[in-house]
Amino acid sequence: MSIKRSDVEVQWQTLDVSKDNRRTIKGHSSAIVWLTGLPASGKTTIARELEKRLYETGVHTYVLDGDNMRHGLNKDLGFSKDDRKENIRRVAEVANLFCDSGLLTICSFVSPYTEDRQYAKGLVDESEFVEVFVKCPLEVCLERDPKSMYKKAVSGKMKSFTGIDDPYEKPESPELTIETDQLSLTESVDRIIEYLDSKGIICTSPIADSLEMQG
Amino acid sequence: MSIKRSDVEVQWQTLDVSKDNRRTIKGHSSAIVWLTGLPASGKTTIARELEKRLYETGVHTYVLDGDNMRHGLNKDLGFSKDDRKENIRRVAEVANLFCDSGLLTICSFVSPYTEDRQYAKGLVDESEFVEVFVKCPLEVCLERDPKSMYKKAVSGKMKSFTGIDDPYEKPESPELTIETDQLSLTESVDRIIEYLDSKGIICTSPIADSLEMQG
Repeated sequence: MSIKRSDVEVQWQTLDVSKDNRRTIKGHSSAIVWLTGLPASGKTTIARELEKRLYETGVHTYVLDGDNMRHGLNKDLGFSKDDRKENIRRVAEVANLFCDSGLLTICSFVSPYTEDRQYAKGLVDESEFVEVFVKCPLEVCLERDPKSMYKKAVSGKMKSFTGIDDPYEKPESPELTIETDQLSLTESVDRIIEYLDSKGIICTSPIADSLEMQG
Repeated sequence: MSIKRSDVEVQWQTLDVSKDNRRTIKGHSSAIVWLTGLPASGKTTIARELEKRLYETGVHTYVLDGDNMRHGLNKDLGFSKDDRKENIRRVAEVANLFCDSGLLTICSFVSPYTEDRQYAKGLVDESEFVEVFVKCPLEVCLERDPKSMYKKAVSGKMKSFTGIDDPYEKPESPELTIETDQLSLTESVDRIIEYLDSKGIICTSPIADSLEMQG
């Protein structure tokens, strides 16, 4: 039995310490960098390197990762369309909380459906959501296949695998497109950092200077 | 249809930037302060004041609040026993992520069942979980009744209300018990801050000094 209560009874609590306060304490803005793309397109590799590079310049980040989330919050979910939708819905809500907490939040998910990515985008201000299409031809992903999952999907041993027997809806107007079959990892991450810098979400130089000054 | 994949296929990604790295960047440790108690016992009031006081000393916090979470991540859940269980399970998983991200995470939830609080505790190291029993006699909560919910519950207009027709299992060995009918808000928060300080989770004096030095 599901007992619902009205909005009057479940009230949003306005907390005294705001998102802006938390941003001030850290000296950079917060946002969600949402990496979407086929399995093995390079999302997690980029997420790791981006986090490392941002950490080195004093930016406080956190990575929400498709695989990792499925061990905790989303361990009750599978890979059917409904479960994928609920997977991304929950991740989007958590990313929203992390962004609200003042962190540069990096999300790395196949997130194959436009509708689900739009949901995530809709939770925050437009300027706070950076959709990055990690673009890589299917044949290159098939070659990489680090976990032999494409192999299983092609042979029919694994069902509902994005790119094989499940659809991937390409982003229509992502903030960035990173073609991982053409760019090196460093170049890929450079592009994202340059974008974040150009939008004033992070400010690499002064933060780096200030860290140096502190020794 | 729920399609499951084996653990081999959904692998935990070890990220290069660790919890310790993130703690270092902020100069304090991370932990979960879990406030549990009857509705209107004072959890949210304490959570707000605690966040404010910690923010003033340079500690990066985030509040996960029962009411707030039900507007986002847990908006599909009601108040049946199963839904309460799933509510706390998800909150616990999110609190774990926040703790991992390096934040002092304050959770404010009725969380009436011992089993569910134990689940939350079990996700992190013992030293990272501070269970705070916000203790207040039912008759005092009934008098306070800021949202007139007890009134509705007593009159039978609202079902499954903790303390009235739903059970509250008291913590058996909480790290702290705060009796809000006997302590002022300032005293209540002082106790928590003193505890966090005594356990080395935060270190109020040096951080305050260092903030002063930076002007």
